[in-house]
Amino acid sequence: MGTNNKKLTYSQSGVDYGSIDPVKVSAQQAAAATADNLTSFGMQEVAASRGESAYVWQEGDGHRALVVEGLGTKNLVADAMRTIGNRTYYDQIAQDTVAMIVNDLIVVGALPNVINAYFAIGDSNWMNDQERSGDLVKGWKAACDLAGATWGGGETPALKGIINPDTIDLAGSAIGSIAPGKLVLGEKLSDGDHIILVESSGIHANGLTLARSIADTLPDGFATKLSNGRMYGEALLSPTHIYVPFVRALLEKNIDIHYMVNVTGHGWRKLMRATQPFTYTMTTVPPVPVELDYIAKQAGADNKEMYGNFNMGAGFAVYVPAEGVEAALSSAQEVGLQAWDAGTVSTGPKKVVIKPLNITFEGDSLGVRS
Amino acid sequence: MGTNNKKLTYSQSGVDYGSIDPVKVSAQQAAAATADNLTSFGMQEVAASRGESAYVWQEGDGHRALVVEGLGTKNLVADAMRTIGNRTYYDQIAQDTVAMIVNDLIVVGALPNVINAYFAIGDSNWMNDQERSGDLVKGWKAACDLAGATWGGGETPALKGIINPDTIDLAGSAIGSIAPGKLVLGEKLSDGDHIILVESSGIHANGLTLARSIADTLPDGFATKLSNGRMYGEALLSPTHIYVPFVRALLEKNIDIHYMVNVTGHGWRKLMRATQPFTYTMTTVPPVPVELDYIAKQAGADNKEMYGNFNMGAGFAVYVPAEGVEAALSSAQEVGLQAWDAGTVSTGPKKVVIKPLNITFEGDSLGVRS
Repeated sequence: MGTNNKKLTYSQSGVDYGSIDPVKVSAQQAAAATADNLTSFGMQEVAASRGESAYVWQEGDGHRALVVEGLGTKNLVADAMRTIGNRTYYDQIAQDTVAMIVNDLIVVGALPNVINAYFAIGDSNWMNDQERSGDLVKGWKAACDLAGATWGGGETPALKGIINPDTIDLAGSAIGSIAPGKLVLGEKLSDGDHIILVESSGIHANGLTLARSIADTLPDGFATKLSNGRMYGEALLSPTHIYVPFVRALLEKNIDIHYMVNVTGHGWRKLMRATQPFTYTMTTVPPVPVELDYIAKQAGADNKEMYGNFNMGAGFAVYVPAEGVEAALSSAQEVGLQAWDAGTVSTGPKKVVIKPLNITFEGDSLGVRS
Repeated sequence: MGTNNKKLTYSQSGVDYGSIDPVKVSAQQAAAATADNLTSFGMQEVAASRGESAYVWQEGDGHRALVVEGLGTKNLVADAMRTIGNRTYYDQIAQDTVAMIVNDLIVVGALPNVINAYFAIGDSNWMNDQERSGDLVKGWKAACDLAGATWGGGETPALKGIINPDTIDLAGSAIGSIAPGKLVLGEKLSDGDHIILVESSGIHANGLTLARSIADTLPDGFATKLSNGRMYGEALLSPTHIYVPFVRALLEKNIDIHYMVNVTGHGWRKLMRATQPFTYTMTTVPPVPVELDYIAKQAGADNKEMYGNFNMGAGFAVYVPAEGVEAALSSAQEVGLQAWDAGTVSTGPKKVVIKPLNITFEGDSLGVRS
């Protein structure tokens, strides 16, 4: 297969971050105005956590964090692969969903205590496929164990007219605890800090709308063989890494973590998520997963579009002072993840520069904050 | 309009609790197997909370509770009423959603500390209707204030192919705290306890699938005038009461609460939610909201079907010993809610008997537990 002439962009494929973000901003402002309600419990919000992946407040001598997150549309790939791969893949889809939740929680230094599930379907029949619903339950349980959290409870509503009856909207929530002195919000970020990139397992769970659009243009669809012999759909379904054991290792080694980023919907633009006007200069680029390379070629997307929307092999980033680099790299190795001492932080202006690829993302290209 | 000859039942209208509950049960069993993960944080699950509306664990000398809940399909009524009523109603819809979350949380004696929002749409355009998204944000904030909780954060994914592009899946999560000695799980329920029913504001957010099916059969649809002069759709959209101030008043008065139930998807069958084999004998029935009476007539549903699926004017129930009745009733009055000393608990078998209506729900008609 050659590349497509018609370039697929995010807004053409139905996801327009430009439309979503203003509402996020107004929601953040309304939410901030409710901060005082916590004080009646003797708790105190950490205002700087607004706009971060997890909301954080102070309790006693430590902190707590709460996240609600969803999978996105990755399960539609599993649905399409059901007959091709002769399995449901929903055990992996469950891991993806739990990963989306807990990987957003741990960036503030929290470890997940309890995870609740939200499985919203369009028709009760979805649950009657017991192989699929069984895999979902089994995978969710296994993922909670990987994350070291207890699966508390959840909800399985049938939303006729809202959810496509063939599909499921997978989401959930996690409450986490941050040990005294271990809160990570980026205020420690400093000129000279190193940026450790940690491997992704593939596309993870962001950018799937575009990835699915591409399958629609292929004669063999998701069954298309990639250069490594894997089917395109199978490769997309590699379950997202759960980075909790990695962050737990960092915390246990008392590494001085200055910041962490879960590389999701805005790709490497998210590396400049912290509020301060730093420049993030990346000098090493991890190997690109074959399926992401294939997406780039098929979509006719250049590196800037790809690194601005996909993880491109780097699913998680940790920012540490030079003296923490070795311990951070060995923490990754201990939990079976590849990691790279891949870049440095320097005094602004705010931008991400990927040197080997000659790409610059300016600060205003990331609209996730108010 | 006369009544329909064709009876509308839950499974015909797309919600079949019989299909959902077995997965709930297997999920509860898998979840229970992760209980030990909490112990690494010095926390301990309260196993008896599994199957309750909120998951509870012990922390220090108190307890915490976590809930994930969704609105259901009530927003589809708001969508249909948009042009008829010339407003979005999404401020009220937001209150409904927050009410669904926090009313499930408070039944264990918890007060909500932080609420996170999950607004999942099918197409980014949904958010471009700024009157509607503005109302949603404004209503969510106001509802958090009513609940005395801080709005932490949230997520607004665009799920093309999963969510109908004209709609939104509204859900969220709340973490709550239970003061030492204030945990309510029903183990105190005793022969002779009184059942205090507290008014609903109308249909609340359960049974909307059936309510919408009825509108489809009416020439004037949601604009149909009820006997009290209100439009059917407008009446359905009465925002769900948030019962947090009521429960806070009960807790502050140190009333000996034996059990609480948020009357939702299984209607009055939920009054026997506690595990023990008690008989719940209801001697008083609150006035039925006009719109629920209308639904019964249109659907050709008898009282047993209606009371088994709708709140029928009673949105919340508190079980107290005889000496707590007066204080419970005055707590409701103080927060502006009508309440009735409506029934009593006696030694089993497990069933709900509604004396004035000659209805009995047997114990096996409620399938929410393993």
